[in-house]
Amino acid sequence: MEIVKTQRNLTMLTDFYEITMANGYFKNNFKDTVAYFDMFFRTVPDGGGYVIMAGVEQLVKYLSQLSFSQEDIEYLRTKNFDEEFLKYLSDFKFACDVWAVPEGTPIFPGEPIVKVRGPVIQAQFIETMLLLCINHQSLIATKANRVSRAADGRAVMEFGSRRAQGADGAIYGARAAYIGGCAGTACTITDEMFGVPALGTMAHSWIQLFDSELDAFKAYAREYPDNCTLLVDTYNVLKSGVPNAIKTFDEVLAPMGKRPKGIRIDSGDITYLSRKARKMLDEAGYPDCTIVASNSLDEHIIRDMLAQGAKVDSFGVGERLITSSSSPVLGGVYKLSGVERGGEIIPKIKLSENVQKITTPGSKKVYRLYDKETGKAIADLITLADEKVDESQPYELFDPDFTWKRKTVTDFTARELLEPLFVGGKCVFEKKPVSEVKKYCAEQVDTLWDEVTRFENPHNYYVDLSQPLWDLKQQLLRKNGKK
Amino acid sequence: MEIVKTQRNLTMLTDFYEITMANGYFKNNFKDTVAYFDMFFRTVPDGGGYVIMAGVEQLVKYLSQLSFSQEDIEYLRTKNFDEEFLKYLSDFKFACDVWAVPEGTPIFPGEPIVKVRGPVIQAQFIETMLLLCINHQSLIATKANRVSRAADGRAVMEFGSRRAQGADGAIYGARAAYIGGCAGTACTITDEMFGVPALGTMAHSWIQLFDSELDAFKAYAREYPDNCTLLVDTYNVLKSGVPNAIKTFDEVLAPMGKRPKGIRIDSGDITYLSRKARKMLDEAGYPDCTIVASNSLDEHIIRDMLAQGAKVDSFGVGERLITSSSSPVLGGVYKLSGVERGGEIIPKIKLSENVQKITTPGSKKVYRLYDKETGKAIADLITLADEKVDESQPYELFDPDFTWKRKTVTDFTARELLEPLFVGGKCVFEKKPVSEVKKYCAEQVDTLWDEVTRFENPHNYYVDLSQPLWDLKQQLLRKNGKK
Repeated sequence: MEIVKTQRNLTMLTDFYEITMANGYFKNNFKDTVAYFDMFFRTVPDGGGYVIMAGVEQLVKYLSQLSFSQEDIEYLRTKNFDEEFLKYLSDFKFACDVWAVPEGTPIFPGEPIVKVRGPVIQAQFIETMLLLCINHQSLIATKANRVSRAADGRAVMEFGSRRAQGADGAIYGARAAYIGGCAGTACTITDEMFGVPALGTMAHSWIQLFDSELDAFKAYAREYPDNCTLLVDTYNVLKSGVPNAIKTFDEVLAPMGKRPKGIRIDSGDITYLSRKARKMLDEAGYPDCTIVASNSLDEHIIRDMLAQGAKVDSFGVGERLITSSSSPVLGGVYKLSGVERGGEIIPKIKLSENVQKITTPGSKKVYRLYDKETGKAIADLITLADEKVDESQPYELFDPDFTWKRKTVTDFTARELLEPLFVGGKCVFEKKPVSEVKKYCAEQVDTLWDEVTRFENPHNYYVDLSQPLWDLKQQLLRKNGKK
Repeated sequence: MEIVKTQRNLTMLTDFYEITMANGYFKNNFKDTVAYFDMFFRTVPDGGGYVIMAGVEQLVKYLSQLSFSQEDIEYLRTKNFDEEFLKYLSDFKFACDVWAVPEGTPIFPGEPIVKVRGPVIQAQFIETMLLLCINHQSLIATKANRVSRAADGRAVMEFGSRRAQGADGAIYGARAAYIGGCAGTACTITDEMFGVPALGTMAHSWIQLFDSELDAFKAYAREYPDNCTLLVDTYNVLKSGVPNAIKTFDEVLAPMGKRPKGIRIDSGDITYLSRKARKMLDEAGYPDCTIVASNSLDEHIIRDMLAQGAKVDSFGVGERLITSSSSPVLGGVYKLSGVERGGEIIPKIKLSENVQKITTPGSKKVYRLYDKETGKAIADLITLADEKVDESQPYELFDPDFTWKRKTVTDFTARELLEPLFVGGKCVFEKKPVSEVKKYCAEQVDTLWDEVTRFENPHNYYVDLSQPLWDLKQQLLRKNGKK
């Protein structure tokens, strides 16, 4: 049912310098040079302890459709690229190996979450969309995970389409929000495309269009007796909205033998109003009628409301979720880590005055070590691609900056996080229903210690380098630092 | 050349409640009821004095393509909508009148910027995408306008695709940024689709791929002698990057009779580095070689850099522009303002405990009054649709909240801001090249007083109601306040 996206070729959604460089590589005989790139990020949005990986399915789709149309070639001709290069692009066939951490996995700063190996022109070219897909959806999945955790078991609905940054922001944001923990979305097309449950009842305009609030409620209840959630704040929640809702439940639903679904409060002091409304509903014989709250919410407001005893059963969260407004950027980067020459990998490093920005060289793997007894995640370990972690032996982890901080782990399982998406350009990715990804996400977040998941001052989860990788990095630092 | 978008039907990008309500209206015989809706916003992002209108062209495109496919109908059937309603949707033909303020116009809180009149099912249904298109692009155009003004005549390039919130965030964000004042973008597809100039030269990986920085520079200069901008911060800007750039200009470009275009600094203390680099370039005989800066910039950092004497000729601005990260939401809303009954318009108002959230009822027009002598914008005036402002007579403006604040204006021209996009469902919008929209935007921003355009504590531009409209609003407030 992916009617919307299949017709859309985003090959040209690339920074112009990717094309300039592609042509330069082509002219400088780097056409067949095989390069390695890693995507990683440096900081967690909102000062959190982890990010939720998302956007892999859309990355796969983009890579599967990579091709330059005749129009693209004509456009590039106007930019003075020559015919030989344009011919090369016309014949373009994606040939890279690509690995990624599965969607829904908690990920941490500094570790490769996507890895690409292939002809440098191609591996370089895909940078922009690769980053865009993963940065965007991981950002929103992470925010949704925070908001959902704040709701402490209550359902959170994604309600932000109208304030999203573009149509894709709404469509894929709602998908990512579901993976991260939301129960559903208001965005219909995301349900149609991905099966993310879409819900929604009425806006204030519904109420306004009728001669009275009661008329509007009754008309709605007659039409939707099985799914009757009424918006009670158009005029006055406690004096008009809730009494009219109860009247509607009594006079329309009760004779049909139906129970109400809920009321929604979209403005005012929701903590206060929800407590009063709860009491009114209970006294009227509707303790099963839920209360939905939906006005400028985020994880902090939800926690505060619940701490103050708000009687809210589910939350609709809009702009602050769909844009991750308090921290609207995940700053993933894509860096060259190596080049093959004569069958060997020449590791590459990028130096920087800012120590945080120095990259980790070489072709790498990422392991997550889980404690066998508790099932909890102990640390992530980045190794060279040809290393193997032997679970049967104790393993000594050490902090890559403060190397005297050491810890030997035993009784662990080591799971490789990077899974193949493409092998030699051939897609080997198996698409999963988003509901499965969502379930996996919740299970994986459960493997994190509370110290890592807390909102304020979370513990820095360990992301360590193996001894051989650390040695390689030091060696390149010494060599290049002298230049 | 709009190959990318034409295949994409976003009809189903709608909040689910729009469909629930549509069905409810259909069942309650409101099918042919004509309703009026206004889009307006309440606050300017970043505490600024105005917003730049943008996204109208994409709204027109969405409305022109509104239709339910067979797949959409099948999907809705699974949601238990009945056949009569599904038949109605299958036969859906857009029939509304739509007006909007032209793209590039400065707009202000509380005034209608889009107005819709038509069958309530339709006029209601389009809410989500209407808001999304205008909220998103206006947000980014506004931010770009701030950043460009901070650059004080220097070019600002939009560089943020990789951190945009989805592909549309990148594509249309780049379009909006250009309208707001950017000189161009790195986003190639936006150039291909809209003619927004795309530029770009090299990433750090280009440098890393060669055996040395000098080799990388020389290879680039040989390939692009007419457009040679070199990235000088891969190893060390002043010790390696700039000297190697000068060497390249001397040894590759000079023998070809070519001048360098520029150098780019993407990290470190750019103010300091740019001043040192400027001196080195000048002394080497390249005073015409420009310096481009591009590291986590925004309007405040750019102002600060220039105040400290940074020698930067142009700026590349990424994530903080493409997401408007310091204020990532424009909160435009869409509210019912009236309903036709028996040929008459019944005005509608939405009350709220929060006085700011009370709507202005009725079918309305918006005038901008310009001073004839200075050409400056004096105030915006919202009137009822059947009022006519007579420019030949003095006009008394008054503050709608503090009505004793009055001012009589003379020698003004009154311009109607809302222009028709659709008449009875027929598109009458004339698409303009974005370069024209950009030019118009700059001219219109020039009509604003400095007090309105300043970044900190800008003056609240007057948005007043005509006496008849104010009277109508008071009357409805009294009437509905009693309910």
